[in-house]
Amino acid sequence: MRKVDLSQMACPIARSLDVIGEWWTLVIVRDAMRGATRFEDFRQVGISDNILSARLRRLTEEGIFERRAYQEHPERFEYLLTDKGRDLMTVIGAIALWGIKWTPGPQVNRMVHEECGHGLTLQAYCEDCGRVVTRSEIRVPQMFHPERAAV
Amino acid sequence: MRKVDLSQMACPIARSLDVIGEWWTLVIVRDAMRGATRFEDFRQVGISDNILSARLRRLTEEGIFERRAYQEHPERFEYLLTDKGRDLMTVIGAIALWGIKWTPGPQVNRMVHEECGHGLTLQAYCEDCGRVVTRSEIRVPQMFHPERAAV
Repeated sequence: MRKVDLSQMACPIARSLDVIGEWWTLVIVRDAMRGATRFEDFRQVGISDNILSARLRRLTEEGIFERRAYQEHPERFEYLLTDKGRDLMTVIGAIALWGIKWTPGPQVNRMVHEECGHGLTLQAYCEDCGRVVTRSEIRVPQMFHPERAAV
Repeated sequence: MRKVDLSQMACPIARSLDVIGEWWTLVIVRDAMRGATRFEDFRQVGISDNILSARLRRLTEEGIFERRAYQEHPERFEYLLTDKGRDLMTVIGAIALWGIKWTPGPQVNRMVHEECGHGLTLQAYCEDCGRVVTRSEIRVPQMFHPERAAV
């Protein structure tokens, strides 16, 4: 179905999409961040069992989940986010914030500041300058028609 | 193929994935941020023409691209990111940063601070407290087994 192998590309966005760029995958990771660990937790969203099995296997192979037995007779497993998986919180958070702004529906912020209880945003930050930077201060190198286009 | 309609869900992450949760979509938006505007720009990544046409049509219907004629005989169109499309920069940036950290390949940061030339990161920010907050200060409401799991 795919003509190109995203996993071999020079661009880290393309490589990441090879792992996570499929809508069920990010829904599964979202639910893991909300405490889902077992097959019956993840299937509540309405995903079919065979797709869920395939995604959990792939995500375990990719090191996003660690699979651990929690029961022996019969053997049953739970899926726990690794550091690599927990690091997707920024991706999930960015998608949530975009959805809150641009899609119709309840405006629920899923990332909360523990200390004050308010919703969090994501900001571009320059480690070298030690400060948050605004959109207009961000440059994205132009690969196509640098003479024409600007974000 | 899908048993559930993500666009109707209460969760803004699910609603967003209905629009952008398909790997070619985000590759197309990535290239738009790098200056791609025309069909022949977007097809360079290796996407097939029929998939590219379908994605550009959907993204235009969703208001992520504005379609504008740039030539009359024969009629040709370019696709320009709207504000809604440009707002995906945080999503693309979050995916890029995850890929730089967790996938093997060149470590290219695509978001640069114009002023100092250094690569940018994304940080959770509390508007109310006026400061960047660390991972351990973020709470994600637990929907499954609140007694067991924590991110």
